[in-house]
Amino acid sequence: VNDARRTGVTRELARFVAESRWSAIPAEISHEAKRALLNWAGCAIGGCRDEAVDTALAALSEFAGRPQATILGRSERMDILNAAALNALSSNILDFDDTHLRTVIHPTVPVAAAAIALAEHSRATGAQLLHAFILGVEVECRVGNAISPEHYNAGWHITATCGIFGAAAACAKLLDLDTKATAWALGIAANQAAGTTGAHGSMTKSWNMAHAARNGLMAALLAARGFTSTEQALEGERGFTRVFAQRCDLDEIIRGLGETWELAQNTYKPYPCGIVAHPVIDACLALRDDARVAPDAIERIELRVHPLVRMLMGNATPLTGLEAKLSVQHCAAAALIYGQVGVREFTDACVNDVAVVALRARAMLVEDPAMPKEAAGVTVHASGGSTFDKYVPHASGSLDRPMSDEALGRKFHSLAEWGWPECDAPEFIALAWSLDTLADAGAFARAAAPRQ
Amino acid sequence: VNDARRTGVTRELARFVAESRWSAIPAEISHEAKRALLNWAGCAIGGCRDEAVDTALAALSEFAGRPQATILGRSERMDILNAAALNALSSNILDFDDTHLRTVIHPTVPVAAAAIALAEHSRATGAQLLHAFILGVEVECRVGNAISPEHYNAGWHITATCGIFGAAAACAKLLDLDTKATAWALGIAANQAAGTTGAHGSMTKSWNMAHAARNGLMAALLAARGFTSTEQALEGERGFTRVFAQRCDLDEIIRGLGETWELAQNTYKPYPCGIVAHPVIDACLALRDDARVAPDAIERIELRVHPLVRMLMGNATPLTGLEAKLSVQHCAAAALIYGQVGVREFTDACVNDVAVVALRARAMLVEDPAMPKEAAGVTVHASGGSTFDKYVPHASGSLDRPMSDEALGRKFHSLAEWGWPECDAPEFIALAWSLDTLADAGAFARAAAPRQ
Repeated sequence: VNDARRTGVTRELARFVAESRWSAIPAEISHEAKRALLNWAGCAIGGCRDEAVDTALAALSEFAGRPQATILGRSERMDILNAAALNALSSNILDFDDTHLRTVIHPTVPVAAAAIALAEHSRATGAQLLHAFILGVEVECRVGNAISPEHYNAGWHITATCGIFGAAAACAKLLDLDTKATAWALGIAANQAAGTTGAHGSMTKSWNMAHAARNGLMAALLAARGFTSTEQALEGERGFTRVFAQRCDLDEIIRGLGETWELAQNTYKPYPCGIVAHPVIDACLALRDDARVAPDAIERIELRVHPLVRMLMGNATPLTGLEAKLSVQHCAAAALIYGQVGVREFTDACVNDVAVVALRARAMLVEDPAMPKEAAGVTVHASGGSTFDKYVPHASGSLDRPMSDEALGRKFHSLAEWGWPECDAPEFIALAWSLDTLADAGAFARAAAPRQ
Repeated sequence: VNDARRTGVTRELARFVAESRWSAIPAEISHEAKRALLNWAGCAIGGCRDEAVDTALAALSEFAGRPQATILGRSERMDILNAAALNALSSNILDFDDTHLRTVIHPTVPVAAAAIALAEHSRATGAQLLHAFILGVEVECRVGNAISPEHYNAGWHITATCGIFGAAAACAKLLDLDTKATAWALGIAANQAAGTTGAHGSMTKSWNMAHAARNGLMAALLAARGFTSTEQALEGERGFTRVFAQRCDLDEIIRGLGETWELAQNTYKPYPCGIVAHPVIDACLALRDDARVAPDAIERIELRVHPLVRMLMGNATPLTGLEAKLSVQHCAAAALIYGQVGVREFTDACVNDVAVVALRARAMLVEDPAMPKEAAGVTVHASGGSTFDKYVPHASGSLDRPMSDEALGRKFHSLAEWGWPECDAPEFIALAWSLDTLADAGAFARAAAPRQ
């Protein structure tokens, strides 16, 4: 714990962003950036028809600017600030986006939404987009590291409050700002940083992401014109890490800059629900393949889990899709019946399907304090007395068992199918993997929406 | 100190706003609202050519929407969200706006900037604008009362963080939202509330106001379309008063709603500088009139003040206009030389004028712990041995000696002269006093800018 005052932290971080060269980015990090953007685009397309997105579009269209940037999955185009906001909203609304586990930040949403809108408008190359995105995630997660876990525990929606710094940094890089202007962008961002976990359970939760993307981008646009701000946004007496957290470790922000990369710690969800249920779902999907027991031949499902799972996801009788996202029993039943646990399995219709309700009622939660948090065991008791058992030490999508590139491609397919069925998913996926050689990043954005 | 949990506070406040009737507003409060709006419009016009406003306009014009609303003092028009932001920026940039002394909130800036843009666009009447504005200030200051002084002391820029609630409430009223939608607007606002005092000394300080106005208006627009939020934005476990303050007294938010009015506590500055110097300026202006001593015949000026004045405004050798705003010696010299202390007296040119520098050097600060904070005594020692003395127990503009309607009119004249000399000030002032009978609030806004 280092709470001693350090000066110059914001400037040092700003200089790192301003002076970073694309050639210095390790190949595995630029590949991880492509994975993150592919996963993000899928989430945005999957969520683009959500009621929250329709509502925000209806509320803001009358006041929006020229059609400068793509709204993923939709035919509307908007000015880059509104496009950033709406893409952040849609890419978070399904709770299917990525996670930086140490901070619980969903790193890609605010950074990508801001950067891609600006990159499309300013005709940046794919490499410039990747580079800016990587730096944005680095800034966002390092700021988060410095104030975790106190900041989130105090009620701050950390993806929003730290995401705005990432969005500002990425856009500052795309605008080729120098160290001072980048520091100002971070200063402006610090003063618009907002969002609490009190909004969870409502559309406003994902609007916090929209706010971060929009205002991070706006901070960079203002700083680029010479709009002045503090150069001690992070470490100052009234700086972000002081005002927004009881404790901070400023070293986290600058230690090993350019040597370690936070994007290497990124994880992707194979299932759009609480992460502690993921090993249970893995086990159930495997049992369905192995045992081939018809759902109505299942007499009982035993879910052996760490006690945390009941606390976070122990709702045995969810009534809505939103509630089902916090029901491990529902996850197990859906996996065994459908052989997949995607967006469709968290619709109200699926949650209230008679077969699902019946099987869910036969799922028994067995708490086992000896069970590692990242593991789970499932036993299926079939009629006739046969039992099938599966133990999963690490869920797919965890850092120990990351989703493969192919699995991310399949996830994109299913999300596109959900939000925009006419999407040419193979073409888009190919574009994502070739982002580093794409002459126009806008082509990537436009391929994610119906042609105008 | 009441830190016990109270439920339903946000709903109660929202219901008060939704159910308030214009006929229930006391006449002296609606008159105070006119005074506040006249003072605000003068500040906006006076500040409209500031470099910060030019810079923000240059940065954002390319991304703005249709020309729906007036930017006070300027020929550009913008979509209502950007107009709200820019008018908030310009009306705060001179530090000449009003003050709710208990909280140090500058109440009119965020509320008026948001409400007037929406009122112009939606063709509200003058009475509707006044009504919405009064309710917005009420919400803003009551939220501030509940968390003062801890919130400001922790580094929050209270006008921005509480102003967004006022802007949201005023716009919710103009949009005629019901209790639930008004509560949602407050919920969205709570999640965009932002701004720290770490930005002071840079353009970002006043951008915090722009953020509050823009996002308060946006919160109401979203809620009007059914964008959902928490209904416990203020009192919830992760609500605003919990996350943003170490202590809160929720009773302050709802006690006496509709019986007492925070606008009655509003004060206006006759001089655009730190408020503790105001009795000194009053004394010097009176001495100039009474004694009629030529500045170069003044051998010494003795300023007898409470010790706080040296701490807050004791800079004897300011080099810029910004520094001079915190120099009581400069204020005294300018008053004695020019017979006025307005925006011009805080330009870099005036601060470095040889006559001003010379007289300022002869101003001596005498700390007197027995001097009341709101008072000051000044003695002018002229060559030849004559002395002139003036004691001011309460500065003009204080609650004990409020600026008269006529003085507010003169302040408007001088601000219009500064920011937009072609302004027909008498016509605008007449419009302000007749706002309650104006059929179209937009006429008030448009009279504050060059005709299109």
